[in-house]
Amino acid sequence: MAKKVGFQGVPGAYSEIAARTFFGPSVNTVAFKTFAEVFNAVSKGVVNSGILPLENSLAGSIHQNYDLLLKHKVAIIGEIKLRVSHNLIAHPQAKLSDILHIYSHPQALAQCSLFIKKMRQSEEVPYFDTAGSAQFVKETNLKQNAAIASAQAAKLYGLKILKAGIEDDKKNYTRFAVINKKPLAAKGNAARNKISLVFALKNIPGGLHKALGAFASRDIDLLKIESRPLAGSPWKYLFYLDVKGSLGDEPCRKALKHLSEIAKFQRILGCYPIARD
Amino acid sequence: MAKKVGFQGVPGAYSEIAARTFFGPSVNTVAFKTFAEVFNAVSKGVVNSGILPLENSLAGSIHQNYDLLLKHKVAIIGEIKLRVSHNLIAHPQAKLSDILHIYSHPQALAQCSLFIKKMRQSEEVPYFDTAGSAQFVKETNLKQNAAIASAQAAKLYGLKILKAGIEDDKKNYTRFAVINKKPLAAKGNAARNKISLVFALKNIPGGLHKALGAFASRDIDLLKIESRPLAGSPWKYLFYLDVKGSLGDEPCRKALKHLSEIAKFQRILGCYPIARD
Repeated sequence: MAKKVGFQGVPGAYSEIAARTFFGPSVNTVAFKTFAEVFNAVSKGVVNSGILPLENSLAGSIHQNYDLLLKHKVAIIGEIKLRVSHNLIAHPQAKLSDILHIYSHPQALAQCSLFIKKMRQSEEVPYFDTAGSAQFVKETNLKQNAAIASAQAAKLYGLKILKAGIEDDKKNYTRFAVINKKPLAAKGNAARNKISLVFALKNIPGGLHKALGAFASRDIDLLKIESRPLAGSPWKYLFYLDVKGSLGDEPCRKALKHLSEIAKFQRILGCYPIARD
Repeated sequence: MAKKVGFQGVPGAYSEIAARTFFGPSVNTVAFKTFAEVFNAVSKGVVNSGILPLENSLAGSIHQNYDLLLKHKVAIIGEIKLRVSHNLIAHPQAKLSDILHIYSHPQALAQCSLFIKKMRQSEEVPYFDTAGSAQFVKETNLKQNAAIASAQAAKLYGLKILKAGIEDDKKNYTRFAVINKKPLAAKGNAARNKISLVFALKNIPGGLHKALGAFASRDIDLLKIESRPLAGSPWKYLFYLDVKGSLGDEPCRKALKHLSEIAKFQRILGCYPIARD
């Protein structure tokens, strides 16, 4: 039976493209309305895996998914970096000069601001979702409405790409985490060279410096740090770290043991192969 | 002439309450549609100061304002922590049982989820702004519509508080930065005990650990770290730090000089008195 992978959004969403790129084109994708529903479906075994955006190279981290990683008993088993290319898509008979309204997610609208500025007769209209805006344009069936979404969304909803690659900055990537109910088995074929973890510090002076020192002193590279509010403790934080290394490596195991002297709480979110750029 | 302070939102917004709390009730507040417009107004001298939310103790940082701090030539001259208390407000003749629709900003709706769950007959409707939702409820003039907003918004729009303090978590604070075109004068009466800065690391191993070491080794407390994408360099980051200390202190000046050995770019965003909790 084909693997079932949950994603947030409607068919044609960038998350669904990421799922097909990671698992292959024949994977069975399942659309959910919210990120939380994807996490629930994975932790209850309704789907085999979930795919969730963690950060965009222009807009930054998607914090809700960091919070949900902590809330649910799931593990990161992989990641994928997807180049985000936006397209202006519309009715098959529409011309650029017909377009009066451009629908899309506010982030996609912001990422295409130079193109939109040139479309003088058009106004932008924020919509909850990129692929959802394509679906909406299809439903209205009006030549004056366009959406900003993926090429896949254009194909899926029988719309025409009026202009491809309209994003201001071509270095527009989104990194997705792939989550399973259980972590990858300790021994496997894949090279695990990235560890994601989360911790909260004890109340000690220079705590974060000491925590990072557990890794830096063992030449373990820090790939990313993200801070989030610690619930119930205003102006205290949780730290999410990505480091280069494997739970199978002696220095990493020692660094994590060292960290436990400084952290009042810590949890491994996953050890998995780092995505190619 | 009274000081003019810009804020984002409509009258009755939490930002406006923060401005009145910081500057006193007689301050002349000026409403702007977006955060970027507040920054523009400050840097062009249209208003004397701007007040902008930087983080909420439950929802986390407001990244757009971090990005705008870097983009504009402004300085943080103070901060204020405001306790956020949400209220269900409606038509003066409305009763709780009349309410079918509850309008507010998605974050405010999320922060009152337990209360909303008990309002079985009502559905929540996301709105762009908390005070704006109160303004909207006033305009509709229907007993079935309610908003979640500040007590000040209720008063301003002639609405009734049906239920006060409906937030799930009473430890709900928002921290606002006060910005001016110019930094506080080097010598002044106010005790400056907080420095905000932003930097990007050189490509050196353990760079962030070394950067934090410039402060930790001098017993300068780190209050907050925030990472944001470095434009044009996917998976590289800018770091925003808040540290305890003053630009007038010798150890802080040395730490900042030390940091410049590790950072390829650094900028002081402000040195100002830390807000009371």
